[in-house]
Amino acid sequence: MSIEPRIPTSIAEVDEHTITIRGHDLITEMMGVMSFTEAALLNILGRRPSEAEVALTDLVTVCLMEHGMMPANIVARLTYFGAPESLQGAVASGLCGVGSVRLGAVEECSHLLQDGMSRAIAAGDDHETAARSIVAEQRAAGRRIPGIGHMLHTTEDPRTLRLFEVAEQWGHGGRHIGLLQAISAEAEATLGRRLPINADGAAGAVLSNLGIDWRITRGFALIARTAGLVGHLYEEMRTPASPALLQRIEAGLDYQPNPD
Amino acid sequence: MSIEPRIPTSIAEVDEHTITIRGHDLITEMMGVMSFTEAALLNILGRRPSEAEVALTDLVTVCLMEHGMMPANIVARLTYFGAPESLQGAVASGLCGVGSVRLGAVEECSHLLQDGMSRAIAAGDDHETAARSIVAEQRAAGRRIPGIGHMLHTTEDPRTLRLFEVAEQWGHGGRHIGLLQAISAEAEATLGRRLPINADGAAGAVLSNLGIDWRITRGFALIARTAGLVGHLYEEMRTPASPALLQRIEAGLDYQPNPD
Amino acid sequence: MSIEPRIPTSIAEVDEHTITIRGHDLITEMMGVMSFTEAALLNILGRRPSEAEVALTDLVTVCLMEHGMMPANIVARLTYFGAPESLQGAVASGLCGVGSVRLGAVEECSHLLQDGMSRAIAAGDDHETAARSIVAEQRAAGRRIPGIGHMLHTTEDPRTLRLFEVAEQWGHGGRHIGLLQAISAEAEATLGRRLPINADGAAGAVLSNLGIDWRITRGFALIARTAGLVGHLYEEMRTPASPALLQRIEAGLDYQPNPD
Amino acid sequence: MSIEPRIPTSIAEVDEHTITIRGHDLITEMMGVMSFTEAALLNILGRRPSEAEVALTDLVTVCLMEHGMMPANIVARLTYFGAPESLQGAVASGLCGVGSVRLGAVEECSHLLQDGMSRAIAAGDDHETAARSIVAEQRAAGRRIPGIGHMLHTTEDPRTLRLFEVAEQWGHGGRHIGLLQAISAEAEATLGRRLPINADGAAGAVLSNLGIDWRITRGFALIARTAGLVGHLYEEMRTPASPALLQRIEAGLDYQPNPD
Repeated sequence: MSIEPRIPTSIAEVDEHTITIRGHDLITEMMGVMSFTEAALLNILGRRPSEAEVALTDLVTVCLMEHGMMPANIVARLTYFGAPESLQGAVASGLCGVGSVRLGAVEECSHLLQDGMSRAIAAGDDHETAARSIVAEQRAAGRRIPGIGHMLHTTEDPRTLRLFEVAEQWGHGGRHIGLLQAISAEAEATLGRRLPINADGAAGAVLSNLGIDWRITRGFALIARTAGLVGHLYEEMRTPASPALLQRIEAGLDYQPNPD
Repeated sequence: MSIEPRIPTSIAEVDEHTITIRGHDLITEMMGVMSFTEAALLNILGRRPSEAEVALTDLVTVCLMEHGMMPANIVARLTYFGAPESLQGAVASGLCGVGSVRLGAVEECSHLLQDGMSRAIAAGDDHETAARSIVAEQRAAGRRIPGIGHMLHTTEDPRTLRLFEVAEQWGHGGRHIGLLQAISAEAEATLGRRLPINADGAAGAVLSNLGIDWRITRGFALIARTAGLVGHLYEEMRTPASPALLQRIEAGLDYQPNPD
Repeated sequence: MSIEPRIPTSIAEVDEHTITIRGHDLITEMMGVMSFTEAALLNILGRRPSEAEVALTDLVTVCLMEHGMMPANIVARLTYFGAPESLQGAVASGLCGVGSVRLGAVEECSHLLQDGMSRAIAAGDDHETAARSIVAEQRAAGRRIPGIGHMLHTTEDPRTLRLFEVAEQWGHGGRHIGLLQAISAEAEATLGRRLPINADGAAGAVLSNLGIDWRITRGFALIARTAGLVGHLYEEMRTPASPALLQRIEAGLDYQPNPD
Repeated sequence: MSIEPRIPTSIAEVDEHTITIRGHDLITEMMGVMSFTEAALLNILGRRPSEAEVALTDLVTVCLMEHGMMPANIVARLTYFGAPESLQGAVASGLCGVGSVRLGAVEECSHLLQDGMSRAIAAGDDHETAARSIVAEQRAAGRRIPGIGHMLHTTEDPRTLRLFEVAEQWGHGGRHIGLLQAISAEAEATLGRRLPINADGAAGAVLSNLGIDWRITRGFALIARTAGLVGHLYEEMRTPASPALLQRIEAGLDYQPNPD
């Protein structure tokens, strides 16, 4: 009936006695059987993942989980400081910043790589040729190339090499990784400075090699970062950093009434 | 110096070439070595977890990850419908509802169990005696007892039995689980109706048996739910449920201008 | 010193006895003197607004405040249902959906109009000529034209006419409003169907006529919508809609295990 | 029908040609007629507010809008730094911290005052007697008394006097304000230190004198703060504070691997 349409879903069916997720019984086929990562992939992809997919998703999420007192962690701590009644609100506030600039850039890079790879295959181009087109297009459009360059890890992001090494071990090297390496080399040649592949970009290349749709790659960064945020919030409960953070900020304020 | 205090943290140290998390080198000791769950526990607890801790955390997070078209999933889908540019905002909006009533109740139940257990041990009480005090106190204060009763799983929550079974297999049965079973039995006897232990409560008992501080137990629900939300959002991208959801709600509106 | 840079701000200066906002004393020049809207504009724009700016900002925010059981309101109600301990989390979850598709489209439309107007002025084009270029470009890029068309108000959005009428009364008609009218007419002619200016678009044109930077126009939608969300949450506290909402959704679910 | 229940609401009714809010036509009775604050009160309270209610709500929201580089503002700026594609996410993250400790304390104080006033009236107690009971109860329960004391405004919060002065001018002095003054005096006498009424507390007393249900008082803080956050985010777009903030925090980190 037109005013009461059916709501489509293929994720889960729940009744009083059974819970079925993607066709698998939660109680007998998942709980106590699958790891978090295996269950997450089943949930997201709609099929049981291979051993390699689980291993490389573990690799990527372990890589993106924690990177010190980063903006998202500071955000969550300050939110908790004002609203300790809501751990979920503190985590949510931290996740809001996992966007195009930080961490969420895994999506932008995956998008670039997956689109670039499709076009390269269609055109019969090798990685170097494809990379030249991609870098030229991004520059012509005035856009930053996602996945390369890092403020701190200026010459080499130590996570990148490890991501590629383990991907190779599981038979998922090359392809989007190769294309990203070519993009990094082409960008360095064109722009005349070091632009190493950063962890967000490398993670995007590994997820792309697993066939993960670029539109959901940021989701893996969010899963990883949630665990990192919980760690920071538990520390904040016991050893609050917020008072010192706020005092340092307060001490550095430079109020100028009229720059607008 | 008083205006420039030091900011304490023991989670991670990052410099240009190395990333150390809880004393472990991210590149050589974690990536490609640890599973997501092992790394998350290291991050949160500040020490490498045992095999049993990893297995039971997997158990709990797999259990809490997905339960169909629940409020948090609907919330995330509708947020994405209005703001598809921000996957992180959609996940964050869903997490905001993981509170005291739904899912986040793992915290309330862990709190009750950990406090109750401390007092029982101090007083030399057995589970039944402790449960009588706890139920009487909650009733006297007019508070709902967290962790028991479920709208759908009215006679037995199928997840509860499985959580307890696997906990037992790993040598983490009894204790907070026993106390929660005694509370459920006492509440049923006192209130004269079926009040089975629900999955939130059972998860709280298992995490309590692992020694996880009740203040951070909701964090595990948040980690699990983030994976569930990503699954729902990926489905929403490809097979949107929001239009049908909104149409059904629209069709059911009963506007009455003056009930206030 | 390079490692301790100064943090620039020109918004407020607070010490033990005085609070100065954009050069105005909060106690003597703002509280009891300015309306919410006047103070908000001072805060955002960095200068005292004119009477017309206050009136038209009131107009726009009153217009965008409330539009029934829309997605953002449903989101906030369901979040509150799960986490009643956090009103702020419920409001935050609702705001996360004020994005490019719904309500937040005021930004997309303002952007289009402000860019289009700059180019038209530089080229000496009239509204019709500028509109032809804009519609052609959006179509060539495969982009939807923001600010026109509405699912419910298909022939005329009643808010649009009123927004333009009051803007005219205050001497802020024409200009971006004229350009948007030309865009709507051109799009209708080109696409052969009714595409009336919607409230988001009209609000964007009015704010653009006030000289409000398009990058912050969505902020006015957020302010307006926060008031609307608080209204819905107060109703939800006293007359919960969530149980009925969830029951209707549950009744409509169509679980199909394998469409992926 | 039981599986398709009606969804109750008395806020708004929208059809193709008309939008009715709380019984008022949006186009003819609200837009261009009501200020933001008047419309917000109509929306929330379900009735047109008096002139005094509008004036005092303006007073309270102007008071709570902006207080410098506070945690919520820092949070929103850092979120924007990572995710500039989502202004709504940055505002939402800032609002998540408007909780029980900061700003949101308007709710805790209103709750205390409204409950205390009901009991005082029932018992025939004057403010001083009621204040003695309230302070004694809070201390016995080990709870902080909300609405008094401030880290920066240690001897007097300049906003408090002004809030009370304007409330008095509009005929809404005394009552909850008197009770809060008695509580502050009693707490100072009992605890032997200065505990002046802070702006959150004073705002709660003024809103309570208007008959605003304590459960929704935090909503007014959220509305006010949204405007403040938009101001900070617009400054962040043009004169980013985040890089300097992060550099100062980075410079202050004191990593100690094993305090847990």
